[in-house]
Amino acid sequence: GLVGLVAAEPMPAAEKSVGQRFRGELHPGGEVILEKFVVWASGKSPEGLESQALDAVNAAADTGFPALERANAAAWQAFWAAADLGIEGDPWLDQALHFNVFHVRQSTPADGRNALAAKGLTGQGYEGHVFWDTEIFALPVLQMIAPALVRASLDWRVRTLDRARAHAREMNHASGALYPWRTIDGDEGSGYFPSGSAQYHINAAVAYAMRLHHLGGDGTPPADADATVLFETARVWMQVGHYDPLRRGAFCIHSITGPDEYSALINNDCYTNRMAQLHLRYAADVAGQLAHADPVRYGALCRSLDLLDAEPLNWRRAADAMYLPVDPQLGVHPQDDAFLDRPAWNFATQPDDERPLLLRFHPLTLYRYQVCKQPSVVLADVLAGDGVSAAQKRRDYDYYEPLTVHDSSLSASTWAILAAELGLMDAALGYFREGARLDLDDLHGNASHGAHMAAMAGTWLGLVWGFGGLRIGADGSLHLRPVLPTGWTGYRFSLQWQGRQVRAAVTADSVRYELRSGAALTLWHNAAPVTLLTGGTAQLALATPPTVPTHRHVDAVIFDLDGVLTDTAELHFRAWSRLAAEIGVPFDRATNERLKGVDRESSLGIILERASREIPLAERKALAARKNSYFVGMLRSLTPASLLPGALEALRGARERGVRIALASASHNARAIIDQLGIADAFDYVVDPATCGRPKPAPDIFLAAARALQVDPARCIGIEDAIAGVAAIRQAGMKAIGVGDPRLLAEADIVVPDMAALRIQRFL
Amino acid sequence: GLVGLVAAEPMPAAEKSVGQRFRGELHPGGEVILEKFVVWASGKSPEGLESQALDAVNAAADTGFPALERANAAAWQAFWAAADLGIEGDPWLDQALHFNVFHVRQSTPADGRNALAAKGLTGQGYEGHVFWDTEIFALPVLQMIAPALVRASLDWRVRTLDRARAHAREMNHASGALYPWRTIDGDEGSGYFPSGSAQYHINAAVAYAMRLHHLGGDGTPPADADATVLFETARVWMQVGHYDPLRRGAFCIHSITGPDEYSALINNDCYTNRMAQLHLRYAADVAGQLAHADPVRYGALCRSLDLLDAEPLNWRRAADAMYLPVDPQLGVHPQDDAFLDRPAWNFATQPDDERPLLLRFHPLTLYRYQVCKQPSVVLADVLAGDGVSAAQKRRDYDYYEPLTVHDSSLSASTWAILAAELGLMDAALGYFREGARLDLDDLHGNASHGAHMAAMAGTWLGLVWGFGGLRIGADGSLHLRPVLPTGWTGYRFSLQWQGRQVRAAVTADSVRYELRSGAALTLWHNAAPVTLLTGGTAQLALATPPTVPTHRHVDAVIFDLDGVLTDTAELHFRAWSRLAAEIGVPFDRATNERLKGVDRESSLGIILERASREIPLAERKALAARKNSYFVGMLRSLTPASLLPGALEALRGARERGVRIALASASHNARAIIDQLGIADAFDYVVDPATCGRPKPAPDIFLAAARALQVDPARCIGIEDAIAGVAAIRQAGMKAIGVGDPRLLAEADIVVPDMAALRIQRFL
Repeated sequence: GLVGLVAAEPMPAAEKSVGQRFRGELHPGGEVILEKFVVWASGKSPEGLESQALDAVNAAADTGFPALERANAAAWQAFWAAADLGIEGDPWLDQALHFNVFHVRQSTPADGRNALAAKGLTGQGYEGHVFWDTEIFALPVLQMIAPALVRASLDWRVRTLDRARAHAREMNHASGALYPWRTIDGDEGSGYFPSGSAQYHINAAVAYAMRLHHLGGDGTPPADADATVLFETARVWMQVGHYDPLRRGAFCIHSITGPDEYSALINNDCYTNRMAQLHLRYAADVAGQLAHADPVRYGALCRSLDLLDAEPLNWRRAADAMYLPVDPQLGVHPQDDAFLDRPAWNFATQPDDERPLLLRFHPLTLYRYQVCKQPSVVLADVLAGDGVSAAQKRRDYDYYEPLTVHDSSLSASTWAILAAELGLMDAALGYFREGARLDLDDLHGNASHGAHMAAMAGTWLGLVWGFGGLRIGADGSLHLRPVLPTGWTGYRFSLQWQGRQVRAAVTADSVRYELRSGAALTLWHNAAPVTLLTGGTAQLALATPPTVPTHRHVDAVIFDLDGVLTDTAELHFRAWSRLAAEIGVPFDRATNERLKGVDRESSLGIILERASREIPLAERKALAARKNSYFVGMLRSLTPASLLPGALEALRGARERGVRIALASASHNARAIIDQLGIADAFDYVVDPATCGRPKPAPDIFLAAARALQVDPARCIGIEDAIAGVAAIRQAGMKAIGVGDPRLLAEADIVVPDMAALRIQRFL
Repeated sequence: GLVGLVAAEPMPAAEKSVGQRFRGELHPGGEVILEKFVVWASGKSPEGLESQALDAVNAAADTGFPALERANAAAWQAFWAAADLGIEGDPWLDQALHFNVFHVRQSTPADGRNALAAKGLTGQGYEGHVFWDTEIFALPVLQMIAPALVRASLDWRVRTLDRARAHAREMNHASGALYPWRTIDGDEGSGYFPSGSAQYHINAAVAYAMRLHHLGGDGTPPADADATVLFETARVWMQVGHYDPLRRGAFCIHSITGPDEYSALINNDCYTNRMAQLHLRYAADVAGQLAHADPVRYGALCRSLDLLDAEPLNWRRAADAMYLPVDPQLGVHPQDDAFLDRPAWNFATQPDDERPLLLRFHPLTLYRYQVCKQPSVVLADVLAGDGVSAAQKRRDYDYYEPLTVHDSSLSASTWAILAAELGLMDAALGYFREGARLDLDDLHGNASHGAHMAAMAGTWLGLVWGFGGLRIGADGSLHLRPVLPTGWTGYRFSLQWQGRQVRAAVTADSVRYELRSGAALTLWHNAAPVTLLTGGTAQLALATPPTVPTHRHVDAVIFDLDGVLTDTAELHFRAWSRLAAEIGVPFDRATNERLKGVDRESSLGIILERASREIPLAERKALAARKNSYFVGMLRSLTPASLLPGALEALRGARERGVRIALASASHNARAIIDQLGIADAFDYVVDPATCGRPKPAPDIFLAAARALQVDPARCIGIEDAIAGVAAIRQAGMKAIGVGDPRLLAEADIVVPDMAALRIQRFL
């Protein structure tokens, strides 16, 4: 009864009389912990648990501490034997894996009266509340290493169904049940509903865990209690969604919030629609199974729920009609209806230490940009990726990864899993490491609030779903595709599934599967069936990680020169000043300001506005040439040190990402300047302003660059410091990064104060 | 100093010493009110107003009550003379007009330190807070009858600009000012930000009132203080909006809330975008005026605001690029990006006494439907209707009116104004009456919280903007187009504008304009210029109210028969039972349930599933005919009393709305049945099921009806009680009203429990 008793936080003063029964038998400190436990259990439990707790302690005292300690050790030993897992070649990650799995198992109640809280038993963060991540992250792990705990956790949902029904009524649903977003005893405990009760995907999370539990069970259909949960929660989707005639009758879900809380009250959240689809289909499947297995019992269940025959049919029709579009331009799943229409978050000017964003920015600000607290589309690709092509997943990965700030501890494991699936081994290992060491190394700086249970479960998921490639088929079959990350010599994990125990041990070039117990099993290794007899093994070659072509949204970066890579404004000013003085025309810095982004002939025109006589064209040409000769002479003073801070890094960053690079400067001296600056080799193409058409703000020079690079303008980024330049980029149909004052460069997609602040990789 | 002193709510205990100075001079009760005023003013005022209040009272006491009373009476007399207005032929409305204008004028502070609260001085509703409606509803009235009060109110905004700047910083805006959604002293007082601070249109409201004030002034450009307010508030639009490349670079505003609070955190709210456009253009205009009028002063102002030359240019470009689409299918301005994709609120099952909806439904529920608390698109058509065609306004009116529940007291006057503009005189008068008598008759049942200042101002707006047709041209010109509502013998109103006093008196067939003071004026009457000399008059004919063709979204209603208009199920059951008994096949109500919506031959097939032998086709045909003969015989028992409750009302309602009506029943006896029911004349067409193609759920029968009626299926509504019937309607591309259980008829657009609950006019 006392297995795994841990208390990280202070509890009320001890009740001596109970602890005294153990006096002399306990390890140092054990007495106090025990007393605290009893007091805590007595004070917390709503259902007469006080006497139960005392009974348990008295029974334990009768048993005596040494016997209890032995029983505890034996229980843990059995657990670790069944869950056998490890990482070879990286002791830090191996330690983290065991530490994390220990805490998840340790913190999950077995009594069916409680559930795994966000912080488990390790701290008072989230005040003991349970969220969706228990079902989405922790239970899928426990399903494979301690399935009885999943049953107990689902029993807690069954037990609190009536409160979920009441909550659905609070939310104006005439039938069905809506589980609360955060809860201890089944009632909604969230305050700000746009990030709380609006997260209807909690219902799909419960169904997801229940589906996994039954797929991993003995094949009998779910009992009435589970079916009731599935049906009642499915009913709510039918009320929160509707068939939209403007979208060819697609089933659309409006005004909910998805797992990425940096958007709220959105429409057609991709994750929610996908998980609701899975939920509705499974609920309809279960209805069919029950009706087939025992029509009389099913009839009675339907009557007790006032469930019409048509309802499961309608669930399936809604699931089939679910709105899950792919954006035709970007080729990605839009996170929601509005997401892709929003401007990207300006990461360029966002210091890394201003995290989490939610503590620094008003929700309305976060809602207004493309920025994700954690994966949402990508989580759907992981949890419900059946039928989604690898290329599609890669496009989603490539699009959403740069927009994700990982302000949630849930983020890393999902990225690790999809990265491994896509063969992005470095990224997968990086995310895996980040998630695994989160609490041990206090990477989020908040371990004092308690350890992150779902992130801890994510370590197991990252190992088994990620590197092991585990996926569960719709028929409950096990599919594996193990790969070995660089630096590891091997790893192993164990799965309890459909009454069997399967162990997989991966080495440098092969995996050894062993059916440790249970009836013969056919699993799938690298998409090929492998049959294991009881006690049998199979040694199979590892596949090389897949290569899924990246989906780049940007093919080229086109740089302006002046004000972006270097600043020749002062040289121009000096050259114009010299010329103006020679011809006796007033010239000052105010006039000079007007020359920004303007070509040489037009600049001369502006200067000559103040000339005392009309100057004929031939003479103008000579004057322009003279100014240019002064300027060219001054150019010799330029060196690589004349590059603006950040310019070289931007060129290098673009080069590393493999995009093409062009220079689109109005300056006829551009070639000479980049020679002087030592960056002539950085460009795949330098536009000749003499032949490219109209000057900025006409788009001609940028379009000429795109043509020469043979890229689609829509897949180019232009970088400019002048209003006319930004206008030219936008006219060309390219994305514009402005360098300077955002009030000035309002038309740019992103404005950075200077090149040093530009982290160009963010945009490529 | 005590003009208009009224206190409707109890105040703290009186301070005897002050009131005693008036002893014997006051009307009954006056002493107590005076004492309460002093205590209240002392307690409330943050800036040493205690002594000011005492000074004022002491000065008043020195003057003596009779003199004060005379001064008060004189002041009111002068006000009423200048504001001269009235309604002839309807004393109740005339009373309401005066009562409402009195309270608005009475409650508006003149000190520049306070502003008109939502409840004025009449009650503690909204706890003294000021909202956008002061600028949008009240100040435009006062601008015409007491312009000095508008100046004072704008001074209050000027005075609180620094707090609006601080609020903008709270909302993460690097520059500019965002006025608080609800405030007393300039700080944001709203709690739930999705219906509070998210209403950025407050900035446009301030600019709107300021623009009107300056258009009505002496023609000099706004002073620096006003320009500062305009510029600082305009700056925020540039940060909250962006150019969206996916929408051809249109300027889009995301994640705000518009005036209709039954939607929140929406994108491209039509009202907000339109008013922001007006605001940005006016701010750019003012910048140009100031730069032209006094470049040096303007330069200094720009420096003090760190305002770049490019900013006003960017304001104008954003305004020109503002995203203001018209939906191509419906021809209306979408209220926001998602609104038209939502299902319509189910008014059919919504009792009228469940108002306001916000007290009965969770915000998430309201957000999920097409339902409006008050006009939003239509308010934009009224306030910024320049360049919007009458046909477009009529489409907006027709679309949004049935979706609007008028849960805000602001609603009625806007509808009255647009109805009058569109020549919908009955509707205009109805809304006008509703708004005018709101507080006197306590129509919303909450007058005890205080009178509704903006609704009261709306009475004047309804009279002058509505029936008088007043609009202000972009150049400040006055445009009028008076019409006379039925039942009135005349009305009159007065306008103070650009230093002039103009009076308009409308009689049965003409209007008499009089320029009571000020320089000669050209105003526009029915779009023709009319010049008035000082003291001069012009008697002009009234135009007839315009006729703007209605824009119907529905051309036809197609009824199913069985289960919708009548219920022959019992007759069918009896006929099938008789046949089944005769041929010895078991038949019960469970089997009968399966026949719902199924044609005769298929029904027989279902019954014969339990036959003990195979029955050849010829015999089947004979059996079907025999059952039919039994059924036809039973039909003679049908009478008009056999119509289902609500069926006749639905047919009549559709007829009144002028749509075409068809019957699409699978029954071959449909004609006989409608004859018996006495509704044969109700239909323009009855589909013959024998010739129309495949049975339901195929769409053929509904498409046949649409073809015969010569209407577009997309502009038809089908009404069905069976799943197959609803599916047929949807397949036909029509809107579906389901009659029955919403769990069953999930695919219908709207489900009503029975025909009695259907208010068909809502959908036509």
